[in-house]
Amino acid sequence: MKIVEILLVEAPHQPGNMAKVLTIIGDMGITVEGLNAIRRLYKDTVWELTIEYDDSLDMQVLVDQINALPETKVVGKSDRVFNRHKGGKIKTQSSIEINSLEVLRDVYTPGVARVCQAIKAAPEKIKEYTNIQNTVAIVTDGTAILGLGDIGPEAGLPVMEGKAAIFSELADISGVPILLKEKDPLRIIETVESISSSFGAILLEDIKAPECFQIEAELVQRLDKPVFHDDQHGTAIVTLAALLTATKRVGMCIKEKTFGQIGLGAAGMGICSLLLEYGVKEVLGADINEKAKKKLRGDGGTPVSLEELMQKADIVVATTGVKGLIKPEMVREGQIIMALTNPDPEIEPDVALEHGAAFATDGKTVNNMLAFPGLFRGTLDAGVTNITHQMKIAAAETLSSLAKEDALVPSALNKEAHRAVAEAVYDSALKQKQY
Amino acid sequence: MKIVEILLVEAPHQPGNMAKVLTIIGDMGITVEGLNAIRRLYKDTVWELTIEYDDSLDMQVLVDQINALPETKVVGKSDRVFNRHKGGKIKTQSSIEINSLEVLRDVYTPGVARVCQAIKAAPEKIKEYTNIQNTVAIVTDGTAILGLGDIGPEAGLPVMEGKAAIFSELADISGVPILLKEKDPLRIIETVESISSSFGAILLEDIKAPECFQIEAELVQRLDKPVFHDDQHGTAIVTLAALLTATKRVGMCIKEKTFGQIGLGAAGMGICSLLLEYGVKEVLGADINEKAKKKLRGDGGTPVSLEELMQKADIVVATTGVKGLIKPEMVREGQIIMALTNPDPEIEPDVALEHGAAFATDGKTVNNMLAFPGLFRGTLDAGVTNITHQMKIAAAETLSSLAKEDALVPSALNKEAHRAVAEAVYDSALKQKQY
Repeated sequence: MKIVEILLVEAPHQPGNMAKVLTIIGDMGITVEGLNAIRRLYKDTVWELTIEYDDSLDMQVLVDQINALPETKVVGKSDRVFNRHKGGKIKTQSSIEINSLEVLRDVYTPGVARVCQAIKAAPEKIKEYTNIQNTVAIVTDGTAILGLGDIGPEAGLPVMEGKAAIFSELADISGVPILLKEKDPLRIIETVESISSSFGAILLEDIKAPECFQIEAELVQRLDKPVFHDDQHGTAIVTLAALLTATKRVGMCIKEKTFGQIGLGAAGMGICSLLLEYGVKEVLGADINEKAKKKLRGDGGTPVSLEELMQKADIVVATTGVKGLIKPEMVREGQIIMALTNPDPEIEPDVALEHGAAFATDGKTVNNMLAFPGLFRGTLDAGVTNITHQMKIAAAETLSSLAKEDALVPSALNKEAHRAVAEAVYDSALKQKQY
Repeated sequence: MKIVEILLVEAPHQPGNMAKVLTIIGDMGITVEGLNAIRRLYKDTVWELTIEYDDSLDMQVLVDQINALPETKVVGKSDRVFNRHKGGKIKTQSSIEINSLEVLRDVYTPGVARVCQAIKAAPEKIKEYTNIQNTVAIVTDGTAILGLGDIGPEAGLPVMEGKAAIFSELADISGVPILLKEKDPLRIIETVESISSSFGAILLEDIKAPECFQIEAELVQRLDKPVFHDDQHGTAIVTLAALLTATKRVGMCIKEKTFGQIGLGAAGMGICSLLLEYGVKEVLGADINEKAKKKLRGDGGTPVSLEELMQKADIVVATTGVKGLIKPEMVREGQIIMALTNPDPEIEPDVALEHGAAFATDGKTVNNMLAFPGLFRGTLDAGVTNITHQMKIAAAETLSSLAKEDALVPSALNKEAHRAVAEAVYDSALKQKQY
């Protein structure tokens, strides 16, 4: 597995010194992610060097080679990632400074009682006089945290806080991490329903398949507010966006082509479902799990073997978590291949291209954080109770339309893109509201 | 019932004009809460005039009298309270600006995975690398919102947001409103337990008696983190603080006196319980509810009739919600009487004093927001799993020691007082931890 490490390297500040260090790293096949001077000493500079390397590699070999350079040495590892997590990544803040008795008596007792009574008399006023229409629960049971699997909800909290921080920075939404103790889908459904009045919408996060399907479907049914499992639909939206860009580039019409999805977990099912709704006629799916294949058939797709899929599909997306699952000889001339498993894809893009693919990419640019902030912003602003396929497609089309140069989708930190997604989703939601 | 209203009054800016308006208001027995010039016109000024009046009074009479003044008129009511609630009073914010790919990849994938793994390996690190030890759920079922009763959790949200805003402003704590759909105590307990991993502590709020007792007791038992029902113990802490100040002033030793509590709801039970723990030998309690009296006996107090209580108690606290329940002729020479029902007390303090009370006050200064911010700050900082009576008493003694001039407790917005409570609670918690 590829991991990120941050080394602290001390070297004299003379031209060419860091070039030598980077050459060693490059020669070992390691990717550099960043290089920052963090401290200037009398003769030396301390550099923070972020690298991504395969954990099969012996780090000590790299360290020894760097230390062998004259006057250059690895002085430690950086705690930057942990430092940025110290004390957590989010906080609840008062929107109003409570700096006088007058303010206090307006926002708390006795003034607040009038607002409570106004909401009691006209329940829709809760959207005007509280933060609820701006608040999204980020709910997990901890069973599928990133690629780490079932590490429990507490160990997953940094991911939920990360999502809340992204919500805050990119969509001015208040995210609230909710960690669930139980794993039983029915109890999860009941608990989320019990607390659902607290939020404007529910984002389900890192809940494993197949439980996630039942949990989401049932909550969508029961609640009169948006419920959205990001692992399914967030990934699907960004994947569709990337496919729209890629097919446009190679002059392919996605709706007329045969689509093949390898891996029918949360992401794979979400992708199949969205592509079917988008109008793709033939959606094939492969998985080692028979129940998953049955579910695909129920959703309108066609389960096949991996080999058959690779033979028939013009467009292939893989989300299996299995490094190197797609053998080079399986690739057909002219295929579009998106091998999305992070950090190690089902097939390296350059290998796929060498074997005839018209277009190939991995999961690095297909970041699902491109979808959820704007999607929720638009949904909450429109005040609708469901996130429909049309709204998801509007988000995907917008993302694709904003892709620049050779990128498939915009940069994840492009605030304009998030705003554009919000507007497109808002417009789509209002259009459906009218009919 | 007394209500707060904010009138907009337009008058020429000449000396004496507002004096005339305030004289009319005073003559009608109405209290002025505030007077702000909010707009200066060519000849006139528009004033925002906050008054508190009994709703049995016909507002139109006041308006007519003001309008009868030369060139002075009531031009409307202010929306100040509602304006201050627009869009809600709290928001979740990112603690770190996500302004580069480097930051993003540290606080979200891939960097965040390392923090997740660190917490998985050493669960106590969740306190260091997330905001959890700074996060308090503010949980209500909406059955006893302020004095408004069972108006439901949604209509109670402005109160919960108010508490969260106060947490943020006075103790740098992240409050998270949780509105519960169910009313059944067992289901409430289960739901709160299910989501309890998300928070460093649980504040139960505006849940009616007797359900609140069972809910709190069971959650204290089940969870390995602090659980605190503010209506019971927050009020008790501030009441004890006020009693300590009042008894000191009249030269009374509270532990040696007979204490009488009228009204054995959440607040009354909390007060009895804390006074018993404080060391008061004789605690009498009166209520119309037989079950409540039975519970008091179980807790170590003595249930009596209202009349007997007034005859025997040296110190009387009333929290019944019943205006004028204590008749003037019931008051005995030398009694301390705190009639805490807001906005209309069981007996007006001046009436009690006229009839021989050594000291009398109402609920206006006994604001439970003096307790909860510092109490939770100190508890979370100490990392203890229970809020003990010793910690509550430490908070009460600190508040009493900081009361200035003729006040019983410090001002609710005195940040020094909240910090002092936090420190006292922290010290008390650590002392118990050692033994």
